[in-house]
Amino acid sequence: MTDELLAVRMDFDELVLLLRKIFISHGTSAFVADILAANCAGCERDGALSHGIFRMPGYVASLKTGWVDGRADAEVSLVSPSFIRIDACNGFAQPALAAAAGAIDEAIERTGVAVVAIRNSHHFSALWPDVEPFARKGLVAISFVNGLANVVPHGGHTAVFGTNPIAFATPVADAEPLVVDQATSVMANGEVRLHALDNQPLPPGTGVDSSGAATTDPHAVLAGGALNTFGGYKGSSIALMVELLAGALTGGQLSFENDFGHCVGAQTPKAGQLLIVIDPDRGGSTDFSQRAALLCKHLVEAGQDRLPGARRYKNRHTTQTSGIPIAKNALSELLQMATGGAASSS
Amino acid sequence: MTDELLAVRMDFDELVLLLRKIFISHGTSAFVADILAANCAGCERDGALSHGIFRMPGYVASLKTGWVDGRADAEVSLVSPSFIRIDACNGFAQPALAAAAGAIDEAIERTGVAVVAIRNSHHFSALWPDVEPFARKGLVAISFVNGLANVVPHGGHTAVFGTNPIAFATPVADAEPLVVDQATSVMANGEVRLHALDNQPLPPGTGVDSSGAATTDPHAVLAGGALNTFGGYKGSSIALMVELLAGALTGGQLSFENDFGHCVGAQTPKAGQLLIVIDPDRGGSTDFSQRAALLCKHLVEAGQDRLPGARRYKNRHTTQTSGIPIAKNALSELLQMATGGAASSS
Repeated sequence: MTDELLAVRMDFDELVLLLRKIFISHGTSAFVADILAANCAGCERDGALSHGIFRMPGYVASLKTGWVDGRADAEVSLVSPSFIRIDACNGFAQPALAAAAGAIDEAIERTGVAVVAIRNSHHFSALWPDVEPFARKGLVAISFVNGLANVVPHGGHTAVFGTNPIAFATPVADAEPLVVDQATSVMANGEVRLHALDNQPLPPGTGVDSSGAATTDPHAVLAGGALNTFGGYKGSSIALMVELLAGALTGGQLSFENDFGHCVGAQTPKAGQLLIVIDPDRGGSTDFSQRAALLCKHLVEAGQDRLPGARRYKNRHTTQTSGIPIAKNALSELLQMATGGAASSS
Repeated sequence: MTDELLAVRMDFDELVLLLRKIFISHGTSAFVADILAANCAGCERDGALSHGIFRMPGYVASLKTGWVDGRADAEVSLVSPSFIRIDACNGFAQPALAAAAGAIDEAIERTGVAVVAIRNSHHFSALWPDVEPFARKGLVAISFVNGLANVVPHGGHTAVFGTNPIAFATPVADAEPLVVDQATSVMANGEVRLHALDNQPLPPGTGVDSSGAATTDPHAVLAGGALNTFGGYKGSSIALMVELLAGALTGGQLSFENDFGHCVGAQTPKAGQLLIVIDPDRGGSTDFSQRAALLCKHLVEAGQDRLPGARRYKNRHTTQTSGIPIAKNALSELLQMATGGAASSS
């Protein structure tokens, strides 16, 4: 309630404009600023706070140090009618993906499949914004991203994997798309940072400290420690799959190859992303979205309390009518960044 | 040791011939018998015992009741240069996949991608035999299969999903391919059956009884109970993804739609399978298998004790030199089945 009293409420468009100004004033192109501002404001709007305005100091620091190129023009190559290769040229992943939007549409129309391999890219946001739009067009989309090595393989003691998220979106008849977005670590790194900010202990089993010993201290995990994969050895195998698909198959960097060098304060991972888009109605003779709706109905009847993505839609609905709450001190910081200043903290 | 004394040792080819005879004598075509016999003997050879000869009574019962068609000729349709649709016509999934081998090779050659959607198929074996051969050709393969509803969604009380495995195979330079094959349930159903056979309790958290209460009794899980998904809600979301890709996108049955009806004793699930094959060297500018080898090196250095698939390769190597151990009573049963008789137990 105290936070609530100290918060202002902004329209989505108003927040996008402010964030856009921050990106522009730190040297990005208008194209990049448009995409990242809408993406970040969308996370804040949907209550995906670990990828919302909380990330802005990280974006700014990464741009200021020259670690990431905010003016990069991605190079899109058509390998085949179904296979698109993108060199993000050390820019952000989302504008690289946007640059291939037409090629993806064409691949889907011609062949029902688009495999999109993005390399030399920085992905610093949630993954669901990349896949949800495809589901709204009736398509199934799966994406994998690797990152900074901060997750230990099962049974190991040193970080090899990034938090390596998987996102998955499908249309559902007469309902919002089903959208899964989850790290293959026990917890997303952004969540660990939020715990650190609040000095809240992590649940047991979340991670290890720099010596490889189990810890519940978020600061210890962030200071040279690492996260565990979710689901034991099975989760670890999925993290491995993501590392290979996003980091190796794309021709990108593996998570452990990130070296910030002289770019002190930079935070965005230089890695890769694989996206697979499929037109589900080419697969069989049935209406996929009706079948997905039937499955969802059975999940609810079986007692599953919440379908993936439902919380985001609920938050989106709420903030669309009553505005996006932004803490006053966070707003001050954003306004300062919009004048080209660095954030007071990251 | 007692088991060892009561076991005979068979060559792989000898076991294949015996299993082939069993399939033929229960009405399958020679094509289907060749493929299933090699598949099942390969599981036994590699120590993947829950999908080895232990499954033969289930195959036989499913064939005898007419639940599955052992003579089905799969219908392969080319939806696009990259998209292959297969109606297995109520036959087994492996011969359906084999029938599309040429089409898959051609899709890969032309476009670097093959999406293969198999419906009306019965998959009663492990999934790694479907993907490992692609990795041996330098390709990356991912496959998803749904099955019989025996897994509850996270937070639910009724089975909706099958054990819904994911398999994943990639080439690794100067090494055996990396091959992951794992159920999205805490435990594979075959493992539960092996526990039941041995009257061994399951680890806590494996499943629920028919009332939805947690149990460690494998018989209770098999008698109207269900398994949990691995890794909590994240594993449940992956099981959901598999259900949609394998069951819905293919136009196949969802796991909860299986109804054995009058086919008492039948065991094979009528479901679907999705396979995605990608030529990894089309994705980027690097040699994928060298990059995969580098990642594996880092995993070993980080302390991961075993890479996915390593145990199977070790068993394969051992049995290739010293033969596949088959318990004498199991051999008697196989010989009885080869004369067209039913197994004494399933």
